[in-house]
Amino acid sequence: MDKNVIYVSSDIKLDNDSLLLNESLFHNANGYIGVRSAFEEGYPQGYSSVRGQYINGFYDFSQAKQAENLYGLVQEKQTMLNVADTQTILIHFDNEVFSMFEGTVIKSRRWVDMEKGTTGRHVVWRSPQGKEVDITIIRMASFHQLSLFTIEILIKSINFTGDVMIESYHNGKVTNYFDPADPRTADEGFHYLQPNSCNIKYGASYITAKTSKSNLEVCSCVKNLLSGESERQFIVDDNNALCQMVTSMQSGETAKLIKYCVFADSLRVSDVSAHAAAQMKQALSVSLSELYQLQADYLSEYWANCRVEIEGDDELNTALKYNLFQMIQSVSKDEHGNIGPKGLSGEGYEGQYFWDSEMYIQPFFTVTNASISKKLISNRYETLEMAKENACRLGHKKGALYPWRTIMGKECSGYFPAGSAQYHINGDIAHSIVKYYLATKDVDFIASEGAEIIFETARLWMDAGNFYKGAFHINDVTGPDEYTCLVNNNYYTNAIAQYHLQWAAKLYYSLRKLPAFKRMQKKIQLRNEEISEFKKAAAKMYLPYDEKLKINPQDDSFLQKKQWDIATIPKRNFPLLLHYHPLHLYRYQVCKQPDTVLAHFILEDAQSLETMRNSFNYYEKCTTHDSSLSGCIFSIVAAKIGQRDKAFRYFGSSTKLDLLDLHRNTKDGIHTANMGGNYMAIVYGFGGFRLKESGICFAPMLPKRWTGYRFSICYDERRIAIHVGKEKCKFYLENGKAVSLTVYGKEHLLESKLTIKMA
Amino acid sequence: MDKNVIYVSSDIKLDNDSLLLNESLFHNANGYIGVRSAFEEGYPQGYSSVRGQYINGFYDFSQAKQAENLYGLVQEKQTMLNVADTQTILIHFDNEVFSMFEGTVIKSRRWVDMEKGTTGRHVVWRSPQGKEVDITIIRMASFHQLSLFTIEILIKSINFTGDVMIESYHNGKVTNYFDPADPRTADEGFHYLQPNSCNIKYGASYITAKTSKSNLEVCSCVKNLLSGESERQFIVDDNNALCQMVTSMQSGETAKLIKYCVFADSLRVSDVSAHAAAQMKQALSVSLSELYQLQADYLSEYWANCRVEIEGDDELNTALKYNLFQMIQSVSKDEHGNIGPKGLSGEGYEGQYFWDSEMYIQPFFTVTNASISKKLISNRYETLEMAKENACRLGHKKGALYPWRTIMGKECSGYFPAGSAQYHINGDIAHSIVKYYLATKDVDFIASEGAEIIFETARLWMDAGNFYKGAFHINDVTGPDEYTCLVNNNYYTNAIAQYHLQWAAKLYYSLRKLPAFKRMQKKIQLRNEEISEFKKAAAKMYLPYDEKLKINPQDDSFLQKKQWDIATIPKRNFPLLLHYHPLHLYRYQVCKQPDTVLAHFILEDAQSLETMRNSFNYYEKCTTHDSSLSGCIFSIVAAKIGQRDKAFRYFGSSTKLDLLDLHRNTKDGIHTANMGGNYMAIVYGFGGFRLKESGICFAPMLPKRWTGYRFSICYDERRIAIHVGKEKCKFYLENGKAVSLTVYGKEHLLESKLTIKMA
Repeated sequence: MDKNVIYVSSDIKLDNDSLLLNESLFHNANGYIGVRSAFEEGYPQGYSSVRGQYINGFYDFSQAKQAENLYGLVQEKQTMLNVADTQTILIHFDNEVFSMFEGTVIKSRRWVDMEKGTTGRHVVWRSPQGKEVDITIIRMASFHQLSLFTIEILIKSINFTGDVMIESYHNGKVTNYFDPADPRTADEGFHYLQPNSCNIKYGASYITAKTSKSNLEVCSCVKNLLSGESERQFIVDDNNALCQMVTSMQSGETAKLIKYCVFADSLRVSDVSAHAAAQMKQALSVSLSELYQLQADYLSEYWANCRVEIEGDDELNTALKYNLFQMIQSVSKDEHGNIGPKGLSGEGYEGQYFWDSEMYIQPFFTVTNASISKKLISNRYETLEMAKENACRLGHKKGALYPWRTIMGKECSGYFPAGSAQYHINGDIAHSIVKYYLATKDVDFIASEGAEIIFETARLWMDAGNFYKGAFHINDVTGPDEYTCLVNNNYYTNAIAQYHLQWAAKLYYSLRKLPAFKRMQKKIQLRNEEISEFKKAAAKMYLPYDEKLKINPQDDSFLQKKQWDIATIPKRNFPLLLHYHPLHLYRYQVCKQPDTVLAHFILEDAQSLETMRNSFNYYEKCTTHDSSLSGCIFSIVAAKIGQRDKAFRYFGSSTKLDLLDLHRNTKDGIHTANMGGNYMAIVYGFGGFRLKESGICFAPMLPKRWTGYRFSICYDERRIAIHVGKEKCKFYLENGKAVSLTVYGKEHLLESKLTIKMA
Repeated sequence: MDKNVIYVSSDIKLDNDSLLLNESLFHNANGYIGVRSAFEEGYPQGYSSVRGQYINGFYDFSQAKQAENLYGLVQEKQTMLNVADTQTILIHFDNEVFSMFEGTVIKSRRWVDMEKGTTGRHVVWRSPQGKEVDITIIRMASFHQLSLFTIEILIKSINFTGDVMIESYHNGKVTNYFDPADPRTADEGFHYLQPNSCNIKYGASYITAKTSKSNLEVCSCVKNLLSGESERQFIVDDNNALCQMVTSMQSGETAKLIKYCVFADSLRVSDVSAHAAAQMKQALSVSLSELYQLQADYLSEYWANCRVEIEGDDELNTALKYNLFQMIQSVSKDEHGNIGPKGLSGEGYEGQYFWDSEMYIQPFFTVTNASISKKLISNRYETLEMAKENACRLGHKKGALYPWRTIMGKECSGYFPAGSAQYHINGDIAHSIVKYYLATKDVDFIASEGAEIIFETARLWMDAGNFYKGAFHINDVTGPDEYTCLVNNNYYTNAIAQYHLQWAAKLYYSLRKLPAFKRMQKKIQLRNEEISEFKKAAAKMYLPYDEKLKINPQDDSFLQKKQWDIATIPKRNFPLLLHYHPLHLYRYQVCKQPDTVLAHFILEDAQSLETMRNSFNYYEKCTTHDSSLSGCIFSIVAAKIGQRDKAFRYFGSSTKLDLLDLHRNTKDGIHTANMGGNYMAIVYGFGGFRLKESGICFAPMLPKRWTGYRFSICYDERRIAIHVGKEKCKFYLENGKAVSLTVYGKEHLLESKLTIKMA
């Protein structure tokens, strides 16, 4: 059994919960399109299915009605749309249709192949009337051609002789998922997408559809190729196209269907129909096996850059690989999209983008595939004007404030205390740009796009904060922990604002002579005095510290709140947010996820190790880990402060969160930020990797149960492979120039290979 | 011109804004029913009208959809319903129908008569064809018979001879006001009330209707009597009844229509149709002139108890009288209703009840008509179980928390930071019960109802607050000022909680031997240790104090917020809540209304006069008075600290708030809490009246522009009249036993009359 192919079950479970979960776990995506892995032939009546196909960044506006309206509250949000359904295929053997819910499933399995970039389903089936067939279905969302999704079906007859009739659907009349029985979602059955043409050209069906409000258009094109096809007819109405094909077979023979599906959207191209036609032509210009090879080639390069391998724990190793595979499946490859907390695997969070992108996902790409980070930054840059409007909406006289959740750039957060009030997103974005800069030294890009974001968002701190008793305070914001909202001087927020303002000044001095920078400076009318203000605010930033506990309090009043022994809370009451009113949560020292502890990880130079250790111990007792973003960070900081076993435990459960459905919501989609966090847990946590102004650092440790692990880092046009073993850790310069690196605080020059004794 | 009759205009303005405003200002109500004063004949097409008739406490549930749902957020609210329209009457003179928008209005005026308890409209009109008539319309909501609303129309012919045909409508198919052009309110056109029968019995029309969700029923019955009636027919469908009547007249003759309208609702009676029939029979059993006399008698007694007269400023005097007249029009006379911020004059705030009842309106009734305060307290008592459920919803393990806004007892607040988080409502209710107790010594009622409320709400403080560094803290609540939400240790909240807990203990010791009290104690399982806990929390209550400014900060962090010079804010940006996002407001030292200053008024013994003076000066600079509850309190505290001119200025503009439509929203309804506050401004402010455990106190002062003023106080089964002049103030014991009172800090015995030199 190849450890890079994951078999979830050699007997496919047919209960609805398993099917829904597997729609997420086995989804196909390439960062542009995502297709949930529903069965092609569907489920019986009474089963629910989130039968969705999504395009990154393709949205409509939907209503966000406020129970009580106040000035500036969001009235409209954006929803990622389910576009045409192209995955439906029925296979008729004479008068019987293939379904795993009828007849006998003799053998079955599903898998995702993370080297090939495909998913598969294999079923040996006996029909109620005794026909036996062996069916293999391979699905692929192509990395080589992002518009392309393919389904290949191999039908091998065991004892059947006769006609096989295949009905391949292309349905334009779709909605996002809703439960008509649930009054809270019943009005979500709205047809955001309305097909405006459906026709057949050169044997392919084309459906174009328009959104209700956002004025966007999408075209999907489907072409079916069936081996030995003897008959074909199309049945077409305004919204749907059905292609019926017949082939005949004898016992032992195999028939093959290939279904090519391409998508084009008006965010990216002007003539969606023409583009879809061209994309179909391109897809058909090479064979499917060539397309499979191109897919494998793409992934081969991907894995070479981001490989992480654990020696001595195959199960964990495969789980981790699954995490990293989902990263490349989910992330946008262009600046029109970003990466949502569920990637393209489901409709959770309505496909909106959050700080997860910058704080949990970019750190992975920045050191393995920086060109993707660059696109993510460009996506933010594209929406900078809207971030300025968002700042205005909130009453600010200058600067930009990025929305807490968005697709196209406007705020979608309906509950601002745990949404728009999370001003730290400005610092998070600045932090991710600085890290990109440190990893790539891509001065031109920073001067033309990155710096403009950094300055506009830095300006916001100056308007949001104020000096009080000589210190710079930031009041009425919410930190990462959403169990404590609208607080003053959230440590994380103030610390990242300080970092942000310091770097705004640094970049100003280091880049100001570049022509691109000068153009930007003129464009945004950045004055020299503003830089002085940034420096002053950073220098005087108020960072709460408690003398008695010797920790950084989460905010000005966290420590005066009631304490709550988490161990006494009944298990059924987790996650707390589903069982307690926000006011109750706000009144207790209880955290959904790391807040100060996250600050201690990403801004470790701001505090002594002792303070971090005290903080970790204090907040660990208060934290429920109700967020999937929690365990990985606790793992990293536990590693940092030397609590090796604890670091290992946090890492293990975090890495299997989706595969074991630990949060019981993977059916709504995978957890991409958690996955990025798990990468960090091994590389930044156990590997002790840091990307600093002074260069790159490592402080490797080996969890007791492993015999070793390896990972790679791309840094400033070179790739470095690291192997950590029981006695030694080894650094290999795989390409690029020699580089100085710091291991356990001591500087070394890596020319080709470096061996260091484990601390 | 009788100064007790207010003429708004001797020429009725016909622009839509004036008409809408006057629908509120001239509405008729008696605390049970309220009818907005729309023209009987309606307005031309294109005019908007809030043509409403309301029953106090009669509601339906309506949707409160949250843009982002969190556990425990309100999903459903209550809306006071517009019940059947009984005010529509068309008068046809041959082929012409009376309308002020056609022909010529030769003369017109509208008035409210505050001694008679009626409103009137008088129009001398020439039709387009030259018919001249003199029409007088008198409307009354009867205090004697609460179910009854009458319209009397006197039609005097000046030059017309012929048939007068009157069409009197009774429309059951009504909705609450909505603007179909406004998408935010468009779905409010829902028919909450659905007529289920409409028929004629004994010449009267009956319409019964059911609510959509609250399972309530209402019956309205209408009977028309026309002098010299020659013909009559009814046109009836499922929802509406029209009575057409004809009479003939000659020049100089007068015809008279009386329309009797009665209402019965299932909150108060079981068989609404039978009750309506009985009520109609009762109304018809006496003549209209007798009904008018009963109305005048009722008001005569009302005015005797609550009379306030200003000498030397007739305009202000009339405005003040208008305020007090609206109090008796608006307040419920039974425990099934309460008093909304708009009374029964409009649909603002959806007819829900707030803390306004206890803090702004009850203080008036408690010292002028305590039996009404008793009903208001009973209304809260009726909903105590729901207040306990509300506490549960918010995660509390014990106690009751009254909803911030409600009709039938469940929380309606869609935005909890400026709603449910205003825990001070518990203290406000307790405070009002204590005041009722001090004014009446009604020990039995307190032991049976009042104390149970006080203990259950006191328990909540113990669950909401916590000890920190030896002091009792209350975190994450909102004080009266809604421009600063979710704060720690709001001074007002902590101070009123302290008062509340102290009084809970006091009442326990003074009442515990009463049988009614013992029953209550057993019912709610009140333990002795709880009383000790109350006392301890009260004694250790943390009351923020700033040593430097020598003021009580509004909360723990108010003083570290940004300052904002209100004078620099453009006039068009007021009220701020309509122009700034809440987050912006929360980040500044800016107040909508008094918060600490209100605490200094109602809990004046908690602080030194110097601290109050400092606080007043500090907060006055921060306060926009965007709430209509603001000016009156600033007037009272200005008087208290000796800023006499300022007190006078605040009082004047506050008292004319509705008549001059100073907040530009009186069309949505009058401001009852403001009106109660204006009473307090003269009696508690200039009169220096206080109702304390030690007895009643006065410290009268006379504003410079007045020659004198008088008011009355009912206290412990006696009535005291007070006259304040330039040199002396005089106290008259109008009935009851001799009483000791404190004037300017010195105790006196009032036996029949007492004269004190002005300080």
